[in-house]
Amino acid sequence: MDNEPAKRQHICKRFDRELEDIRNRALTMGGLVERQVEEALKSILNNDVELGERVILNDISVNALEVSIDEECTQILVRRQPAAVDLRVVVAVIKTITDLERIGDEAKRIARQAIDMAGHYCKKNQFLDLQHLGRHGIQLLHKSLDAFARLDVDLALDVVHEDRKVDSEYESIIRQQMTYMMEDPRTIPASIDIMWAARALERVGDRACNICEYVIYQVKGKDVRHTRLEDIESEFKTQ
Amino acid sequence: MDNEPAKRQHICKRFDRELEDIRNRALTMGGLVERQVEEALKSILNNDVELGERVILNDISVNALEVSIDEECTQILVRRQPAAVDLRVVVAVIKTITDLERIGDEAKRIARQAIDMAGHYCKKNQFLDLQHLGRHGIQLLHKSLDAFARLDVDLALDVVHEDRKVDSEYESIIRQQMTYMMEDPRTIPASIDIMWAARALERVGDRACNICEYVIYQVKGKDVRHTRLEDIESEFKTQ
Repeated sequence: MDNEPAKRQHICKRFDRELEDIRNRALTMGGLVERQVEEALKSILNNDVELGERVILNDISVNALEVSIDEECTQILVRRQPAAVDLRVVVAVIKTITDLERIGDEAKRIARQAIDMAGHYCKKNQFLDLQHLGRHGIQLLHKSLDAFARLDVDLALDVVHEDRKVDSEYESIIRQQMTYMMEDPRTIPASIDIMWAARALERVGDRACNICEYVIYQVKGKDVRHTRLEDIESEFKTQ
Repeated sequence: MDNEPAKRQHICKRFDRELEDIRNRALTMGGLVERQVEEALKSILNNDVELGERVILNDISVNALEVSIDEECTQILVRRQPAAVDLRVVVAVIKTITDLERIGDEAKRIARQAIDMAGHYCKKNQFLDLQHLGRHGIQLLHKSLDAFARLDVDLALDVVHEDRKVDSEYESIIRQQMTYMMEDPRTIPASIDIMWAARALERVGDRACNICEYVIYQVKGKDVRHTRLEDIESEFKTQ
């Protein structure tokens, strides 16, 4: 019986390592997905079909990681039956990797548009704003993963805030491409590709926000989805 | 001590009721979401701005249901610490309601396009295929909820199969609208709206497939996401 506390502590430590492990694996998956979006953007901006094809192929690794981390989370639920903050970590990881997998799908969509675009007539500068939107979307994703890594609620709130700008950049691209199309019907196929890619990048921003909402859930224990940003900020912002 | 087995049975029954309850609530949410997609489609086909606005407003109820069912699932994980098939039910419900909520978002997007379309120049019959795609997407959603209700793996596989047709209907709408736009630039704004709505309906089909994959997971205990349909069928199809 004397060994009981030591044994418990030992199990506790192992459990902590397991939780740390799924969080780290989610971050690894996040890094991979971030690179996928970057390369997909590069492929459409540089008209690089080969790179686009590589992005599509690499999506398999993203999907495999999701299934494997998901399985590990379920195993932890079964074996450890976590409660309170530990349970929140597991639930947050399960939700985060779902969004990461879907961001991977968006990267694949962008890569498909890149391949489709090859050979389409384009106006000079027709891509300029897409590049800007893309950089911004990737930045949000990067920040959301930082917030997840450091469990940083303030950073998470920043991302949700910043996403509003991404949304309005997206709207402005759509309007601009409509103008191009009406002025010069030859731009229609390229414009449509750009619009799809823009939509995908806008969704990357939305999903980065989802990840940030799970960070707040992990730290504060409160489900803030579908809550007005101003209300979340007034409750949780410290800076 | 004599009371122990009776007590355990009593707890068991209560637990079964709780599991049944979250499944039922997910189905209620599914019914609401299905109606949202139906009304969104109606609003765009009949140019009914008022109905579109109602759909957007009703999305709040969908979101509230998701948060509340999610909370109930987490409570069950904490209190009951389910294992094996019981755990799979809870995990499947958590994932299903996430997809239902996102289908609700697609309905909202369609409704937004309906409102945006009011006043846009349209070609006669420009909507015909959208109606067809919409009916098909809603049918898949309905079937996926049936598969969830009856835990019917064969029906779930049917949906995944049928979704391929929805995908090709969607591709054909995109091609057709491109032709309209090139032939007559006046149709551009309406065509873009129709393309966004078509994309949203195609995504409804994709998410109905996700729900079906969770049905297979619930019943068979196997994660079939990212697996080739033919491989899933050869393993699980009974008919």
